Amino acid sequence: MTLEELRSLVRDFVEEREWTPFHTPKNLAMTLSVEAAEVLEHFLWLTPEESAALPADKREAVAHELADVLLVLTRLADRLDVDLAQAFRDKMVLNRAKYPVEKARGKALKYTEL
Amino acid sequence: MTLEELRSLVRDFVEEREWTPFHTPKNLAMTLSVEAAEVLEHFLWLTPEESAALPADKREAVAHELADVLLVLTRLADRLDVDLAQAFRDKMVLNRAKYPVEKARGKALKYTEL
Amino acid sequence: MTLEELRSLVRDFVEEREWTPFHTPKNLAMTLSVEAAEVLEHFLWLTPEESAALPADKREAVAHELADVLLVLTRLADRLDVDLAQAFRDKMVLNRAKYPVEKARGKALKYTEL
Amino acid sequence: MTLEELRSLVRDFVEEREWTPFHTPKNLAMTLSVEAAEVLEHFLWLTPEESAALPADKREAVAHELADVLLVLTRLADRLDVDLAQAFRDKMVLNRAKYPVEKARGKALKYTEL
Repeated sequence: MTLEELRSLVRDFVEEREWTPFHTPKNLAMTLSVEAAEVLEHFLWLTPEESAALPADKREAVAHELADVLLVLTRLADRLDVDLAQAFRDKMVLNRAKYPVEKARGKALKYTEL
Repeated sequence: MTLEELRSLVRDFVEEREWTPFHTPKNLAMTLSVEAAEVLEHFLWLTPEESAALPADKREAVAHELADVLLVLTRLADRLDVDLAQAFRDKMVLNRAKYPVEKARGKALKYTEL
Repeated sequence: MTLEELRSLVRDFVEEREWTPFHTPKNLAMTLSVEAAEVLEHFLWLTPEESAALPADKREAVAHELADVLLVLTRLADRLDVDLAQAFRDKMVLNRAKYPVEKARGKALKYTEL
Repeated sequence: MTLEELRSLVRDFVEEREWTPFHTPKNLAMTLSVEAAEVLEHFLWLTPEESAALPADKREAVAHELADVLLVLTRLADRLDVDLAQAFRDKMVLNRAKYPVEKARGKALKYTEL
């Protein structure tokens, strides 16, 4: 599945339901944070090891939450006319410059600094 | 770009830098929330209308944050052995059942309920 | 109610239940984000005007979520040996220097820059 | 410092700067999530043990972020006419009923379920 196909699927789903008026970028950005927190909630009290070995039912519940994040992310990009694939490629160029392999190797760098 | 290609690109980037030991699902779930909040921050004091008409420089800054969310989301799914494309398809089946067009049309349904 | 009384009430509640081993600052910081998102969720699709005129039942539900944020915030500060009242006073000194009345008046400054 | 004093201090700070028009509950709820994520960011790559033994400079940086959360929480409650002390007391009654000591002891209960 391509990012472009994703965009069409989400757009069709939303437009059939006439939800576009509610989908201001501001509202979608809020939704993205709410969905990310629903992912986070599944990991709250787990040890790092437990988080890497989820039982099947919990893993499926998390998979559904990840799908929600992907849906909202795709929709927000669409509403902003942002091409997610291009934005990703652009960012990776910046990331490679910012974190050269020799310098970054084995260090707990913050993705938030990417 | 497919979700599968994305996964490979992110995995190569991370493995070259030997960051996998830090990438427990728990840590990545935290990072996802932090990245979503960085998107949100751009929309804090905007009116809904302003949020739909960002100036070019701000739009590009948001695009980079969206790329970060996509990167972390892709990585988290990879670490959990979740196939994002399949998870998305599964969730859309649930969404279509939960929000039938006739019932959902024009109502501000919560994505968080999807 | 003082911040010091709050701290004691939360601590007693937690210690009676022997939850302290789970309350690493990392876990509590995660919980704080999850609780903040539960507040946010109530405001997702509201207009600014609607958000300022909540019906009574929704207002009470939000009040309970705000109490959760206060509880977790208090607990996290306690676990870090941070005196919240002192931290607040210190931060307000910085805020007053950063946002002089003459310069900041009527401008949509970001709290995130406070 | 009481919660009532906090409310007055925050209100005076905001009104001097004429920021009230920007402080819709919706905008403040967004700010609360952004501030909570700034706390979270400090803990991203730490082990649970490291998170409980922050170096002094990092501990002070976190204290400032906690003060921001307290400030925004106080302001949001004020704008909603919610008495935080009363909301806290009400919630603790519910918490005590929901998590009886005998049943809850030593179990990693989710604060999000409180």
